[in-house]
Amino acid sequence: MEKWKVLKSEYVHKSPYGNIRKDTCELPNEFVIDEYIVNEYSDWVNAVVLTKENQMVLVEQYRHAGNDIYLEIPAGKKEDNETDEEAIRREIREETGFVSYKKPILLGEFMINPATQNNKIRTYLLLDAFKQFEQNLDETEEISVKLINFDSLGSLIKTNKIKTQLFTANAYFQAKIFFSENQLNRHKKVEV
Amino acid sequence: MEKWKVLKSEYVHKSPYGNIRKDTCELPNEFVIDEYIVNEYSDWVNAVVLTKENQMVLVEQYRHAGNDIYLEIPAGKKEDNETDEEAIRREIREETGFVSYKKPILLGEFMINPATQNNKIRTYLLLDAFKQFEQNLDETEEISVKLINFDSLGSLIKTNKIKTQLFTANAYFQAKIFFSENQLNRHKKVEV
Repeated sequence: MEKWKVLKSEYVHKSPYGNIRKDTCELPNEFVIDEYIVNEYSDWVNAVVLTKENQMVLVEQYRHAGNDIYLEIPAGKKEDNETDEEAIRREIREETGFVSYKKPILLGEFMINPATQNNKIRTYLLLDAFKQFEQNLDETEEISVKLINFDSLGSLIKTNKIKTQLFTANAYFQAKIFFSENQLNRHKKVEV
Repeated sequence: MEKWKVLKSEYVHKSPYGNIRKDTCELPNEFVIDEYIVNEYSDWVNAVVLTKENQMVLVEQYRHAGNDIYLEIPAGKKEDNETDEEAIRREIREETGFVSYKKPILLGEFMINPATQNNKIRTYLLLDAFKQFEQNLDETEEISVKLINFDSLGSLIKTNKIKTQLFTANAYFQAKIFFSENQLNRHKKVEV
């Protein structure tokens, strides 16, 4: 299977959040697609953040493309020269004020949608998180922090009782599978 | 928490695959974002397709934004007037030639990324699928059908031994959780 040949390429839009590129492509069968849109983004990181009391730290915010208010896990884009771990710790701290002495555990790493965008998301699990700081938001952000019991979130997602999005659901499923495979008894740890 | 006010809105690009809108937005704190990009798409559907022999039906294709060849579950956009069920059956048939007498089971329904795009993905599970037709592809599609044992796919995903994407991983996790919660013993059914 061959890649497509790019005959022409230009930028429709550029911004710190991402660029939009328009490519003219020739397929292996010589068919030409005049305008194939590619969304260029930095890689994104997000995390399931859990307190010792098994509460999951979520952020509620208005999302303009979806035109509604959504409950999501902390997330953001990697800044230049940041490692993934630095990026996710910074995003969590800025959006929620939570930190942890534990090392973030990588749950999964995926191209998001290689048909339309060029970036990956890496999903972490941060355990034993606690609130240490106030939020540190920029002027385009208005974020409410919500704590929800980890075990009850699954049915809230599945029954659409909360408005959330794919990244949050996927991260939750990965964390659930991680706990079941590692038989990590979070409740027991709290009692110790 | 308030929604943003749209001061100006224009289209940067329109195509049958999706539109790109550029909005000027005023936030509740009166801060103005000059150019907020919204990707407008139809809703998408995808499906975990399983044969009676517990093989998962996957499609391999070049994805231009990711500039590589990826293994994914069958997926596509809803056409006008189609129900979700009609759309997913059509996509599976066109991309793979597989059909089933069973009704597709809805595993989950999520906004994909309401920060950047306005559409949902609905993920189905189609059981007892079998090959009935040849593929029916358009001239922009080159797709290889691959069958992989359902139970072995999890570790292939987690160890990055196959190149895949978030939608496929999430659908797989949902199917895995569905089977464990419904205690549906697929292997036993084959033996009957």
